[in-house]
Amino acid sequence: MTELIGVDWGTSNLRVMRLGAEGQVLDRRVDPRGAGRLSADSFAGVLDEVAGDWLGEAPVLIAGMAGSRQGWIEAPYVFCPANAAGLAAQLARPVADRDIRIVPGVALIPNGLGDVMRGEETQALGLFEPGETGLMVAPGTHCKWIHVEGGAITGFRTFLTGELFAAVREATLIGRGMGQPGGHDAAFDDGVRLALSDPAVTAHLFNIRVRSLAGQLDPDGAADFLSGLLIGAELAAEATDRASPVRVVGEEQVAARYERALALAGFAQVSRVSGEVAVARGLYRIWKALP
Amino acid sequence: MTELIGVDWGTSNLRVMRLGAEGQVLDRRVDPRGAGRLSADSFAGVLDEVAGDWLGEAPVLIAGMAGSRQGWIEAPYVFCPANAAGLAAQLARPVADRDIRIVPGVALIPNGLGDVMRGEETQALGLFEPGETGLMVAPGTHCKWIHVEGGAITGFRTFLTGELFAAVREATLIGRGMGQPGGHDAAFDDGVRLALSDPAVTAHLFNIRVRSLAGQLDPDGAADFLSGLLIGAELAAEATDRASPVRVVGEEQVAARYERALALAGFAQVSRVSGEVAVARGLYRIWKALP
Repeated sequence: MTELIGVDWGTSNLRVMRLGAEGQVLDRRVDPRGAGRLSADSFAGVLDEVAGDWLGEAPVLIAGMAGSRQGWIEAPYVFCPANAAGLAAQLARPVADRDIRIVPGVALIPNGLGDVMRGEETQALGLFEPGETGLMVAPGTHCKWIHVEGGAITGFRTFLTGELFAAVREATLIGRGMGQPGGHDAAFDDGVRLALSDPAVTAHLFNIRVRSLAGQLDPDGAADFLSGLLIGAELAAEATDRASPVRVVGEEQVAARYERALALAGFAQVSRVSGEVAVARGLYRIWKALP
Repeated sequence: MTELIGVDWGTSNLRVMRLGAEGQVLDRRVDPRGAGRLSADSFAGVLDEVAGDWLGEAPVLIAGMAGSRQGWIEAPYVFCPANAAGLAAQLARPVADRDIRIVPGVALIPNGLGDVMRGEETQALGLFEPGETGLMVAPGTHCKWIHVEGGAITGFRTFLTGELFAAVREATLIGRGMGQPGGHDAAFDDGVRLALSDPAVTAHLFNIRVRSLAGQLDPDGAADFLSGLLIGAELAAEATDRASPVRVVGEEQVAARYERALALAGFAQVSRVSGEVAVARGLYRIWKALP
């Protein structure tokens, strides 16, 4: 029996899930109509088209960019520390006549100078049991590190890693002629270690050129070294307790790189969880926290 | 009377100077035929075209990319610590029948994994008296910080600042719609202070987006904040004695930004020297160090 229709409506993708009595995913549908391409008045129609036949079965709870100012309806940010009850208390309702609600995003601090996220907060709350302390890493264009303690998000930080990787390759001298990453573990490890030993990443970027000129990096190795540097810079900045469990949420290839880097940095308990499982559990937990 | 013909042959520019008995610049000519556009066999002809009428007056000493592997003739790197006598002992001679010599570049360490420069070493040696300790900052596409002590270059580091500034603007989401830097001192200062307080520059880059969304940065302010972040990251990495004299060598507008950032970081003795004066003095000093 369907307990909840869980929706993860990101910028570039829509995922609708039927969730069972324990929050498990019974069925899912994926559609490319992400929130980034939709105007506010088209969300309802898209949801009906993708999963209209499911919507009568259970209430609908949506996480992600559908709740941004440019989304369906703005669900204003909740501030850290943010737990499931705090998010549940601030759900937005985009339409009056249907049981559809949107999870608010989370902001680090109230003054607007900190950091913000939409969607990852729901994954993070799904990843850890209420009594657990841990760290979620969500690699991607903008990689997020989220600290969870006692069922609440206590802090988080966004790194421009994926986008910077692409920008350095596309628009700099050191990126010119750079090959594809993924095949040179030793070069990746060297990048991670250099960033861990010294946070001066803008100097290390020039080091790619120096090593290439010295014949120490071939074009593909240079890409792996760059990837290692940028991921290593995240690890250097997130100098947290290495004994805490870390859950990596993300696409296979990049998640494997983060796992490798986390091991190099001495994190002992690293595991991987699919984004779908994380968001489904988080939606279910927030739903259950409704008064 | 001309004592030396000093030449600064960079990647994108050629500067030929007649230097007097004290190393002062008596006259100069500038040409756009930088070393980056020339093949090895065309350097001699270009030098004759630009200053053939001067070349008989005195010996010629060249600093810069003319001595790189892709230049006129390779003048292999000298390693740190490098002083005027050390460079003078390793001058390269591109032609057998004329008194033309090229100053070698300097490498930080022998294994090819450190850092390298060509041209800035000559400026740095020109900026400080043999007994002085100080720091040269040469802003630009690849900004160099060079430590000089007792007449020798003891260390240096290259930051990808200028190129990264351009790449972030051209090829990232936060760069989209970014305006022009230079007009928002407060935004620049905020960027410098944030980078000084925490070296996680790849996280601070995302902060530009957060501040912009919160209405804290307009498009021009965002460009100044980015500039402040990247320059601040250099200062954070160069945690040197704030009482040492710092000489900034570079183009007016960008040098003024560095001076502002250096003052924010607590450097008490900051002055500006033109690149021409610096390289002329350095060439003269290296010439005088010949046995």
